[in-house]
Amino acid sequence: MKLYFITGNKGKQMEAKEKLSKINIDVVQKNLGYPEIQADSLEEVACYGVKHIQESFDKLFILEDAGLFIDGLKGFPGVYSAYVFHTIGCKGILKLMEKTSNRKAVFRSIFAYGQPGEKPVLFIGECPGTISETEKGSNGFGYDPIFIPGGKTRTFAEMQTNEKNNYSHRGKSLEKLMNFLEQ
Amino acid sequence: MKLYFITGNKGKQMEAKEKLSKINIDVVQKNLGYPEIQADSLEEVACYGVKHIQESFDKLFILEDAGLFIDGLKGFPGVYSAYVFHTIGCKGILKLMEKTSNRKAVFRSIFAYGQPGEKPVLFIGECPGTISETEKGSNGFGYDPIFIPGGKTRTFAEMQTNEKNNYSHRGKSLEKLMNFLEQ
Repeated sequence: MKLYFITGNKGKQMEAKEKLSKINIDVVQKNLGYPEIQADSLEEVACYGVKHIQESFDKLFILEDAGLFIDGLKGFPGVYSAYVFHTIGCKGILKLMEKTSNRKAVFRSIFAYGQPGEKPVLFIGECPGTISETEKGSNGFGYDPIFIPGGKTRTFAEMQTNEKNNYSHRGKSLEKLMNFLEQ
Repeated sequence: MKLYFITGNKGKQMEAKEKLSKINIDVVQKNLGYPEIQADSLEEVACYGVKHIQESFDKLFILEDAGLFIDGLKGFPGVYSAYVFHTIGCKGILKLMEKTSNRKAVFRSIFAYGQPGEKPVLFIGECPGTISETEKGSNGFGYDPIFIPGGKTRTFAEMQTNEKNNYSHRGKSLEKLMNFLEQ
């Protein structure tokens, strides 16, 4: 079975392709582009995207969205994580959290599965953790230097990809998608 | 002539109604709702909104969007001003700008005019100014307590509505819309 991944991110497609090949699904990248709306939750963003794509695309597809939700900042940067990273960055987040004792945060990923004429099916993966006091490590990307997964003492940026993947929010949502497709 | 203002904000509609009544235009509020996309500019957000509304609404209408763009924060909070206000607020902005010497900012408003089958016509109003060192004043709303319009020493929140309106970004974009409609 062929499954289109609507994304401009080759890395994401490769990750999904590798995983889903185990159940004989061929994940093909399709960079259609779709509007991401301003909303409070990843669910709303994903559902709007699916609906929009379905209007002009009649094959089976998936899309993915993710974000970092920080408790002490009322969920900020949330669905706007990419924009916030490119403006105020990790340094801005740390500044906002100075003297903040509640450092809980969660990385969240959502996969949406679209089928012609059907409502999207959603798969959510989460990685709870905390925001570090300073930036640490140089692996990974985005907020990795300031995110410590639950139960650990090192940031994602201080881990090798293999280790990080054990906790990955995207790994978890992808796993759920795979279980669904397998049945 | 009747002109629909697609907004959930009664205050905005009243402001436009008062102004445009001078040229015999009756501004009627219509709370249709439309998706606001994640984008870098107000122009993109407004154009997408107009296109979306035109799909199901065949009358003349306007919509408006606004934001605060801060130089030293690479334009943050920009088109996400409302979300950022409700999460990190004025205090968050001031924290991000600690030790930032470039305090330049601009309040920007855009009106989009939609006509059946036509591309939107856009009217932009700007109010340049600076971000104060502390919150001051209790009038107004949103970022008013930290925004000082160019050439002044007081924040918007320290001004009476009448005085503030002399500099208002929304007043300026509305003025441009009026001039256009008058011709």
